[in-house]
Amino acid sequence: MDRLSVSDRDFIIRLRAVLGETHVLTEPVDMAAYLQEPRGLFHGTALAVVRPATTQEVACILKLSAEAGIAVVPQGGDTGLVGGQIPIAGTKPLVLSLTRLDRLREVDLHSDTMTVEAGMTLAAVQEAADAADRLFPLSLASEGSCTIGGNLATNAGGTNVIAYGNARALVLGIEVVLADGRILHDLSKLKKDNTGYDLKDIFIGSEGTLGIITAAVLKLFPKPRSRATALIGLADPRAAVDLLTFARNEAGGSIIAFELIPRIGIDFVLKHTHGNQDPLAKTHLWYVLIELASPQTEGLDDILLRILQGAMEKGLIEDAAVAATLAQRDAFWRLRELLSEVQGREGGSIKHDVSVPIADIPDFLSEVEATLTEKVPGARPVPFGHVGDGNIHCNISQPLGADKQEFLDCWDEVNTIIHAIVAKYHGSISAEHGIGQLKRALLPNVKDPVALDVMRTIKQALDPQGLLNPGKVL
Amino acid sequence: MDRLSVSDRDFIIRLRAVLGETHVLTEPVDMAAYLQEPRGLFHGTALAVVRPATTQEVACILKLSAEAGIAVVPQGGDTGLVGGQIPIAGTKPLVLSLTRLDRLREVDLHSDTMTVEAGMTLAAVQEAADAADRLFPLSLASEGSCTIGGNLATNAGGTNVIAYGNARALVLGIEVVLADGRILHDLSKLKKDNTGYDLKDIFIGSEGTLGIITAAVLKLFPKPRSRATALIGLADPRAAVDLLTFARNEAGGSIIAFELIPRIGIDFVLKHTHGNQDPLAKTHLWYVLIELASPQTEGLDDILLRILQGAMEKGLIEDAAVAATLAQRDAFWRLRELLSEVQGREGGSIKHDVSVPIADIPDFLSEVEATLTEKVPGARPVPFGHVGDGNIHCNISQPLGADKQEFLDCWDEVNTIIHAIVAKYHGSISAEHGIGQLKRALLPNVKDPVALDVMRTIKQALDPQGLLNPGKVL
Repeated sequence: MDRLSVSDRDFIIRLRAVLGETHVLTEPVDMAAYLQEPRGLFHGTALAVVRPATTQEVACILKLSAEAGIAVVPQGGDTGLVGGQIPIAGTKPLVLSLTRLDRLREVDLHSDTMTVEAGMTLAAVQEAADAADRLFPLSLASEGSCTIGGNLATNAGGTNVIAYGNARALVLGIEVVLADGRILHDLSKLKKDNTGYDLKDIFIGSEGTLGIITAAVLKLFPKPRSRATALIGLADPRAAVDLLTFARNEAGGSIIAFELIPRIGIDFVLKHTHGNQDPLAKTHLWYVLIELASPQTEGLDDILLRILQGAMEKGLIEDAAVAATLAQRDAFWRLRELLSEVQGREGGSIKHDVSVPIADIPDFLSEVEATLTEKVPGARPVPFGHVGDGNIHCNISQPLGADKQEFLDCWDEVNTIIHAIVAKYHGSISAEHGIGQLKRALLPNVKDPVALDVMRTIKQALDPQGLLNPGKVL
Repeated sequence: MDRLSVSDRDFIIRLRAVLGETHVLTEPVDMAAYLQEPRGLFHGTALAVVRPATTQEVACILKLSAEAGIAVVPQGGDTGLVGGQIPIAGTKPLVLSLTRLDRLREVDLHSDTMTVEAGMTLAAVQEAADAADRLFPLSLASEGSCTIGGNLATNAGGTNVIAYGNARALVLGIEVVLADGRILHDLSKLKKDNTGYDLKDIFIGSEGTLGIITAAVLKLFPKPRSRATALIGLADPRAAVDLLTFARNEAGGSIIAFELIPRIGIDFVLKHTHGNQDPLAKTHLWYVLIELASPQTEGLDDILLRILQGAMEKGLIEDAAVAATLAQRDAFWRLRELLSEVQGREGGSIKHDVSVPIADIPDFLSEVEATLTEKVPGARPVPFGHVGDGNIHCNISQPLGADKQEFLDCWDEVNTIIHAIVAKYHGSISAEHGIGQLKRALLPNVKDPVALDVMRTIKQALDPQGLLNPGKVL
C-alpha cells in the first residue's frame, strides 16, 4: 500500500472496516488471479480486490466507492470471453468478486423457484435443482466455474436455449445493488405482476454497468425422463432449416437440441481423434443432430420416427440414424462436442459469436462461403451450432498448409467480413458472449443509433458518475 | 376550434398538415368515443384525437408535440380496465389512436415470427397466425377489439400464461417512437442477441409512459393438434397446488390450463343459468379444470389418466371426470367461463386483480376468508382462476340479502383488506391489468421504494418533459 494516495489509503481502511482484513486484497500477488482471465487475453489493474459475503456488504462497498468516486468492476467466476470482468489496464478500480456470496437461499417446489445468490457456480445451481428433483436448464462449457450472477449479468445462452430460452428467460426476480449502494429488492416469485416497469431485464445482460446483481429467483422445470436422439444426413443448410420447421410443428417444445454440422467438421473429428466413426453409411454434405426430451417416460421414439419418416417423404433428408443406446447417443454428441477442439488441431481458427434470423441461415452461410473464397482464398468455413436459435458458430479454419500465425493475423479482417454479412441479415455480432471490452468499439457500427443513445441515457441515469464497470459495453 | 389558443390552433394546423383533415379530430362529438372506456368508469378530455396510419406519422406527431410541450395519450382498442388509455379529466393532451396502424408486415415461418403493427386487433393477429398454420397463444376476453400494441403496452396476461408466458414473453423485437419523435428500430427476429441492454422489455408493460410501440416481432408456436381436459373435485386449495406440482412433473409444458373453482362458483352457475349441470356425482368444496395440449395427435389422454390415477393414489383428489367429447369439454369450460357473469347476477361483487407465489395460494385464501369473515360479516369470497400463474381472481360477493350498493360502497375498504394480505405474501396488486389511473395512488404503498425510484429515474431520462401518458403509473 506504499504507493497509495492518502485518500485511497483512507478508502482501503474504510473497506477493511466493513469486510475485515482478509477480504480486501491489495498486494499484487493476491490480486493477480482476479486481474486476468484464463486465456490470458485481457490483463487489468486495480486498486484492490474486495470479496463481500453478503448483499449488505456489497451495498456498503458501493456506497463507499460512490462517495470516493472510485470505479467498481464486478466479477463472478472470471470465465467471460469478452473481458467484461477484467478492469481496463492502467485504471485503478475496485474489483468486486462475488464468489463468497454463494448461498442457496431457498427452494420452493410449489412455485417451482429457487432463490440463489450471485456467487453460486452454475454447476452448484444445477445440482441444487437436481437434488430437488427439478431441472435448471442453463448449461455452458464453463459451468463448473462460472457463477449464476455472471450468467445473468451477461444473459448467458448455451445449449438448451431452443427449448428453455437464455438466462433472462429463466429469471422471475432479482436483487440488485445500485451504483449509489442502495439495494433494489425485487426477488419476486410472481409469474404475473404488472405493477410498473420491468426493471429486472434492464439489469440482466447489462454486464455490470447498471448495477450489481446479488441474488435471483430462478425458474425450475420438470426433469426430462426420456430422450430420443438422431443423427441426420442432408444436402444443405436450407434442408436443415426446413427440417427444423417441420420437426417443430410435430414435436413443439420437446426439441431440446438441433445442431448443424458440416461434413468438414466430421472429417476433422475423424482425422484428429480416435474411437469416433462416420455416423452414417454414406457421407453427406451436412448433418443435423436432433434431440427430443420429455418428462414422460415413453412416446418420444414414435415422435422422432414420425419426424424422420415425414422428412424423408418430403425429400428434406438423405439418411438418418436413431440412437438405440446411450452409447450411440454419446457417440453422436461427441461428434458435435469435439468440433471446437479438432479445429484447433487443424491449425489456425478465427471464431465468431454471431446469430441471424433462422430463415436467413442458408443465405448467410452461402454468402460467407462465397465472400471468403474471394477475399481469403483457401480459408475453410466450419460453421456449426444451434440452428434453432439462429446461432451458428461461424468459425473459419486456415487454408490447408498455410502459416498459422499469418492466417491468425487476418483475425480482424475476417471478423469485419463476417460481421458485415451478419449486419446485412439483421443479425447479431454477439449472440452469446456480450460486448465487454472486446466488442465495445464495434457496437456503434452495428447498433441502431437511437437504441445506442437510449442505452447511454439509461446508463447516465442509473450510474451518473460512470463508476460501474467503466470501459465496458458503452 | 373556437376556444383554442393561438398556439394550440397552430399546433392543430401542423398536425393536419401531416395527417390530413380527417384524421385530426377536434369536435367533441368526434372525440367522444376516444375519451371514455366501455364501462364508463373513466372520462377524459383532450385537445384533439389523432389517428396516424404509419410509424412515420406517429414520429411526426410526437416531434410536434414535444416542440409544443403538449402531452400525448396513446390508445389502442380502448379496452384497458385501469384507465391507462383515457386522458386525465381536465387536461388537454392529444389522444393518439393507433388503430389505423394495423398492417401485418410479415410472416416468417422458418424463424416462426410475425411482424405486426400496433393497431392490429389481437383477434386479427391470432387469425393471421392461424392462417399460417401457427398459434399465437395470447388470448383475452377482449381479443376482438383490443390491439396488440395495447397488449404489449400493458404486458397482457390471459388464459394461456401457464404454458406460453405473458405478452412480454411472446415478443422478440419492437419498434418504438420515443418522446422526442425519434424512432427506435429494434424489430429483431433474433433469439440470441447480447449486444447491449434489453431495451424492449422496458417499453413493454410501461403503459405508454416511456414510448409508443408501433410494431413488434411476435413469436409463433406449433398449433396444438390434440387436447385432453378433466374436471376434478378436491378438498382444498392446498390439494390443488399439490396436484399442480405433481401434474407439472408428469406433463411439463403441455399443461395449458389449470383453473381453480370454488363450490360456491358452481352453485352460482347452476342457480343463475340453464343447461349446465353439476359436473361430478357428488359435490366437492373445490374443483380444478385441467387441460393439456400437444402438437401430436395422440398420447395426451394417457398422460392425463396417469396424472389422475397418481393423484388419486396420493389422496390429492376426490373425483374426476375426463371430457370424452368436445361437448363435454365445452361444458367443463362453460362452468369456468360463466363465473364472472353469474357473480354479477348474485348481487354486488368486489373484484381484485392479484397474484401471489403459487406456494402461498392456500394460506393466502385462508387468510382472505378469515379476515373478511371478521371485518365484512357475510361477505362471500368466490376466488377462482389461474393457479399456475398464482393469479387468483379474488372476487368477493355481497352477503346474501344485503343491499347491493351498500356492499359496493365498501369497495375501497375491501380492496385495502385484500391488498394488505397480498402484500404480506409478496404478491402483486395488479397481476394483469396494470396501474393506469386506477392504482396509481396505491403503487407507493406496495412497491419497493428503491424500485419506484428507479422507475422515476428511467421515466425522467426517457421522457424529461413528462409528455407521455401523464398521470398514469407514476
